Amino acid sequence: MSLLINKLCDKIPDWRYEAKQIIDEKGDSIINNVTVQQVYGGMRGIKGLVCDTSAVSADKGLIIRGIPLLEITHILPEEVFLLLLTGELPDEEALKDFQSQLTEHADVPNYVWDVLEAMPEDSHPMAMFNTAILVMEKESVFHKKYDEGLQKQDYWKAILEDAIRLVAKLPAIGAGVYRIRFNKGELIAPDKNLDWGANFAHMLGIPDPNRILKKLMRLYLMLHCDHEGGNVSAFSGLTVASALSDPYYAVSAGLNGLAGPLHGLANQECLKFVLEIKDHFDGSPSKEDLTQFVWDRLNSGRVVPGYGHAVLRCPDPRFTAFINFGKENIKDDPVFDIVQNLFDVVPSVLKEQGKAKNPWPNVDAASGSLLYHFGMTEFSFYTVLFSISRAMGMVSQMVINRALGIPITRPKSVTYDWLKSNA
Amino acid sequence: MSLLINKLCDKIPDWRYEAKQIIDEKGDSIINNVTVQQVYGGMRGIKGLVCDTSAVSADKGLIIRGIPLLEITHILPEEVFLLLLTGELPDEEALKDFQSQLTEHADVPNYVWDVLEAMPEDSHPMAMFNTAILVMEKESVFHKKYDEGLQKQDYWKAILEDAIRLVAKLPAIGAGVYRIRFNKGELIAPDKNLDWGANFAHMLGIPDPNRILKKLMRLYLMLHCDHEGGNVSAFSGLTVASALSDPYYAVSAGLNGLAGPLHGLANQECLKFVLEIKDHFDGSPSKEDLTQFVWDRLNSGRVVPGYGHAVLRCPDPRFTAFINFGKENIKDDPVFDIVQNLFDVVPSVLKEQGKAKNPWPNVDAASGSLLYHFGMTEFSFYTVLFSISRAMGMVSQMVINRALGIPITRPKSVTYDWLKSNA
Repeated sequence: MSLLINKLCDKIPDWRYEAKQIIDEKGDSIINNVTVQQVYGGMRGIKGLVCDTSAVSADKGLIIRGIPLLEITHILPEEVFLLLLTGELPDEEALKDFQSQLTEHADVPNYVWDVLEAMPEDSHPMAMFNTAILVMEKESVFHKKYDEGLQKQDYWKAILEDAIRLVAKLPAIGAGVYRIRFNKGELIAPDKNLDWGANFAHMLGIPDPNRILKKLMRLYLMLHCDHEGGNVSAFSGLTVASALSDPYYAVSAGLNGLAGPLHGLANQECLKFVLEIKDHFDGSPSKEDLTQFVWDRLNSGRVVPGYGHAVLRCPDPRFTAFINFGKENIKDDPVFDIVQNLFDVVPSVLKEQGKAKNPWPNVDAASGSLLYHFGMTEFSFYTVLFSISRAMGMVSQMVINRALGIPITRPKSVTYDWLKSNA
Repeated sequence: MSLLINKLCDKIPDWRYEAKQIIDEKGDSIINNVTVQQVYGGMRGIKGLVCDTSAVSADKGLIIRGIPLLEITHILPEEVFLLLLTGELPDEEALKDFQSQLTEHADVPNYVWDVLEAMPEDSHPMAMFNTAILVMEKESVFHKKYDEGLQKQDYWKAILEDAIRLVAKLPAIGAGVYRIRFNKGELIAPDKNLDWGANFAHMLGIPDPNRILKKLMRLYLMLHCDHEGGNVSAFSGLTVASALSDPYYAVSAGLNGLAGPLHGLANQECLKFVLEIKDHFDGSPSKEDLTQFVWDRLNSGRVVPGYGHAVLRCPDPRFTAFINFGKENIKDDPVFDIVQNLFDVVPSVLKEQGKAKNPWPNVDAASGSLLYHFGMTEFSFYTVLFSISRAMGMVSQMVINRALGIPITRPKSVTYDWLKSNA
């Protein structure tokens, strides 16, 4: 038994007790209303599910298990994964034990590469990545044990086993997609002495003489880990998992949502915008020129990519973490200079214009420029990085939902005619 | 321009006007409350989305565009697809025009077969089917046009184009999965003179001297087409599509949910149960023996597969349609006899026991026995049939949601701590 299983076996009875107690005591308490606007509005604002791994506050941004993100940007992705799963930061022993499990399961079955090679050369990296996950469905421990009659109270253990084995393989799969899709040559085997995030950087095969790409990847994969339960990738993945589809089905499904332009594509849009500015001014413009450029864009009816967020009403702490990383590690890069100057210019312009609900930058305003600086210039690959990280949050939520016995997701739909008669 | 596009161009402005009007007039009207129980209960009973393609009434079952299912069990799956999309049954000209589009796009790209052949031999048929859909993502018209700057009001047209091309290929993909996975020999090319459902039966390669399997497939693919918007496959597919992921991503995602044992696996569980009875009694037992068998099962704490339903409180009309088909087309089959006798026995036993909210059979209680009778004995394939049919409902809902401009799905999650303080 791993230390993680022991830890969860300690905690889960308490979580179950708390959930049972609040349902017993306050099950009928109304926590919000649903309006006609909301059923036509994608459920925006409907408090409809419980998620304990993280919460997003409009004025503070991402809070992971009660800890504001900016307090833990120094930790490894593996540590944040354990935090998501258990609610506690691991000690050194727990971390090592978990890392050894990830290393043990890092090898990708050969048939995955056969499948990726059989896909057309112009497939999107996200279609390749999500296919690689789906074709491994036969590896599911949960599927096998369920067929053998696994007891309901033990579902979470088999889901956790799948979760670890799947997440362990994602860096190699992501790097494999990168090398196959963009003709980078032979695949690079994992280095069993490197941690999960650094290993990903290693397998990409991008020169990294100062190990800064490894640092960046640790940070990137940590920052994108989770964003509560209602975003498209988490929510669609959870919905699929609620039918007791195993994590291979469920994570592939959720990441199909992340592939959507409204969800995971924004980082490349932001970088395109910054590069457009660089081309326009043949370098990094002055703040005055930039201010005028932004006004011109707004006046022609266009938005400023990377500014605003569906939920946040403050600078996204993930943006702040990336900017801090860039300040420490990047000198004399006109692209990163533009990103920094936009942060000085755009919020006040947006406030003056008065149209934006949130004039602050989100994570996408910075992430692409860093990847670009350190040699990853293939925009269409960026969502794969996002996916590797976000899978940790998705599977953590699945483990917890099965531990709590959350039933199948089944909201009720209504027709226009019903609304006309009943609203 | 196809007749279908013309029809939808006529209708969609009205639908948009109706939606705008009800939001303007009654947007703030509260249609239901959300309780603590429900956020821990998979949103059960939360009226959270609009779906006009179909509605499920507890006492009548499936109603497609206002028409109770049992009134239209004689129509083709293609006709029901047009009904879902437009709200009207097509005339002969509209049907022919649509069928010719399906025929035009029925051929599956060769790389799909390469991918399926590269998957391990023991892959689940659903993993294969959903992979085949996902690897065709590069064919998406919507993805391409979106990248080129497609206007928002025209999204639905490109989604419809993808929907038709994808659904057109599903019979060939499903039959291909069947023949590859179960070593049935070479693939069978589509017969361009057959309709969509009969073509599927043809490509399976199961002997069908009296063309009854073709009739059964038309019925099967018609009956499973849609079941409003909140079931796991529709809802997860719609959520993915709401991020503007194209239908290849979204349908693959939704069907990953259908692969879950709580959703699409029930038909094989029911058939296993019926075969267990047949083995136990070495044939079809008397109603008295069957009654005792059912009581013994219930008294040992087990359920009767195929009886009960999350929403229905009446015999599932899809069950009725299958039973009617069997009565017409099956003679002297102990398996089908048991299915019929169970229907005579189980509801009264369940009522007497008093535990079941709904003592009536659902669709799964009958469908497997018919497939088995007509030569399809591979249980794990049954969910693929369900999938081919359900894809019609999923893509119809996607077309309509884009036509109405429904935004990204984004409910709010809350933490246990929030509930403790606020509920």
